[in-house]
Amino acid sequence: MNSNEELIVGFNIPAEIGMKEEQICTPALLIDLEAFERNVQTMGAFISKHGVRLRAHAKTHKSIDIARYQVEHGGACGICCQKVSEAEALVNAGIRDVLVSNQVVNYRQLDRLARLAGRARVIVCVDDPANIGDLSNAAAAHGVRIECLVEIDCGAGRCGVAWGQPAVDLAVEITDGEGLSFSGLQAYHGPAQHIHDFAERRAAVGQAIQQVAHTVAMLKERGLECEIIGGAGTGTYYFEGTSNIYNELQCGSYIFMDVDYQRVLDAEGKPISEFANALFVYTSVMSHTRPDTAICDAGLKVLSVDSGLPRIHGRDDIEYTSCSDEHGVVADPDGVLSLNDKIKLIPGHCDPTCNLFDWYVGVRNGAVECIWPVTARGMSL
Amino acid sequence: MNSNEELIVGFNIPAEIGMKEEQICTPALLIDLEAFERNVQTMGAFISKHGVRLRAHAKTHKSIDIARYQVEHGGACGICCQKVSEAEALVNAGIRDVLVSNQVVNYRQLDRLARLAGRARVIVCVDDPANIGDLSNAAAAHGVRIECLVEIDCGAGRCGVAWGQPAVDLAVEITDGEGLSFSGLQAYHGPAQHIHDFAERRAAVGQAIQQVAHTVAMLKERGLECEIIGGAGTGTYYFEGTSNIYNELQCGSYIFMDVDYQRVLDAEGKPISEFANALFVYTSVMSHTRPDTAICDAGLKVLSVDSGLPRIHGRDDIEYTSCSDEHGVVADPDGVLSLNDKIKLIPGHCDPTCNLFDWYVGVRNGAVECIWPVTARGMSL
Repeated sequence: MNSNEELIVGFNIPAEIGMKEEQICTPALLIDLEAFERNVQTMGAFISKHGVRLRAHAKTHKSIDIARYQVEHGGACGICCQKVSEAEALVNAGIRDVLVSNQVVNYRQLDRLARLAGRARVIVCVDDPANIGDLSNAAAAHGVRIECLVEIDCGAGRCGVAWGQPAVDLAVEITDGEGLSFSGLQAYHGPAQHIHDFAERRAAVGQAIQQVAHTVAMLKERGLECEIIGGAGTGTYYFEGTSNIYNELQCGSYIFMDVDYQRVLDAEGKPISEFANALFVYTSVMSHTRPDTAICDAGLKVLSVDSGLPRIHGRDDIEYTSCSDEHGVVADPDGVLSLNDKIKLIPGHCDPTCNLFDWYVGVRNGAVECIWPVTARGMSL
Repeated sequence: MNSNEELIVGFNIPAEIGMKEEQICTPALLIDLEAFERNVQTMGAFISKHGVRLRAHAKTHKSIDIARYQVEHGGACGICCQKVSEAEALVNAGIRDVLVSNQVVNYRQLDRLARLAGRARVIVCVDDPANIGDLSNAAAAHGVRIECLVEIDCGAGRCGVAWGQPAVDLAVEITDGEGLSFSGLQAYHGPAQHIHDFAERRAAVGQAIQQVAHTVAMLKERGLECEIIGGAGTGTYYFEGTSNIYNELQCGSYIFMDVDYQRVLDAEGKPISEFANALFVYTSVMSHTRPDTAICDAGLKVLSVDSGLPRIHGRDDIEYTSCSDEHGVVADPDGVLSLNDKIKLIPGHCDPTCNLFDWYVGVRNGAVECIWPVTARGMSL
């Protein structure tokens, strides 16, 4: 074993640069680099055309290599993430402008967030007066400024205060907090991303846009400007991006896509098609003792099935029908598969699937071009 | 920040030894050490009483600390795992007897398996003649002996050949393979573990036991002895363990339990009760803007929901009702929760949930006693 091979074994890296795709050890998480780059460019063209900013969401990929690519080649003004530990990984990698698009309430995480604000622009979401006090104490203790967005619940039923007066009240409290500044609104409608019907999806986001517009106007009356009016995801970015209200889009999944996003339909009732599948779980047939069924080595520990099972890419003669922890069952009615055959699975849900892996294997023209760590994999603090 | 704190931040460790439970950063994966130790002892007493061996399954915990504890204090004769990379972690930690209770077919993993067989007793499952040739080549190349179990499909519909003659034929081929030896049968009925009804579960395992008994007899006629007749899990071990046929039980979940195993019923129609819940995802209320709903910081990236949502431990006034990537929605009809309140979730499915974390936080009498890495977390090669 040479030292390169030792490294690969020690860190459980499934591939070597230059290797042919079919030599990659499985299960592995592949990026089709051409599709990925095209997706990044497509979103870059959209924001450029419509005069909005993109703050690309790292919760999808948790990768510093991809975050840097989005900033350097995809027009992103900065990066979003959901956790302080993710923000640390991004700032350590040189990202200078990070929004934790979530509440931070534990005292240790608050302390870490404040330390980070001494090293980069750090923005966080707020929906509770008690949290404003804690954030202010942390910022003051470290002599830093933390920018705050008031999160409004614009229909998702998750975090956020009601639009209108409750949001204005919080914004005023923020401006009173030592070490804090009010930077705008967070208004992300998560469930709307996955409303498959176009008209229903547009209606849900339309309502959110109205609520945001009213709140922005009320803030203006109080003399408070929103530098950032942020939200949107891969399923709805067109609506927020052309609203003349939102100015920062927080799309994440557009770089990879997944089975669930393929169910989201455009105005003509066809799957949204501007982004291509660029993420695959690469798997091998590991058992084939019955003529019509193969067993592959990709199960629950490498695929998040919360949004449904994966689809097999580029083939309609075989189907992934069920899974257990380390196995997938593949219907093979014509018996076309053999032991060690490779299959590319499109994950049901890309974000939690990426979080199961340590390495991305970037592939172009059938060969491994790069290996990127899933830098913030498992970072949930 | 002292060096201890630096370490904790750098590795995203959610706790310090000695800390009170309520100070642990969330989300975190807790072990109730008292319940865990009692579970290990209960299984140890069972195998001792019934004269069978326990080869405890590390696919559940992926922890060298827990594997060692099962061998040193729980009567385990050795450890099972599902992946070569898991086996490497176990052998590196001093475990001397490891069964990869799965097929290994990729050439790099075969090479790694053979290298490992130079350092410890290594056993693997086989269900395909082509695989026997590959295993033999790998063993011969490294001058080692790999022990093989013929896996039979005793009702799970996953890997394994049919019982009877196909199994005997494979066993004969193994004895002919350079560097290989035939060590017995693998007959694990995965789905039977989760058949909730007692009589149905007993019937499914009863059929498997018959198939195994027939196959063992046929092998004997060919002069082939089964040193290991292995299978069983937490839902069915009583049946295999008292069958007088199986001699090695491969239980994993018994140390932790989960919501799905609590649905498995005993002969009286009550949940099986010999093992206690010892594993919890510890979470904080991070948003509570509506009176009847709290949002906690445990979602899909720290909980596998393939077998259903988690249950809240020890409380019936609140309920975990849905989740997204980083959030859980908790129904709080009486408004009893406040920001930063802690909740203990019993995961729906323990194995893939453990695989989402880097650290176990062991708790006793309300304080942190130990912090164990999830050593083989994400090791799927």
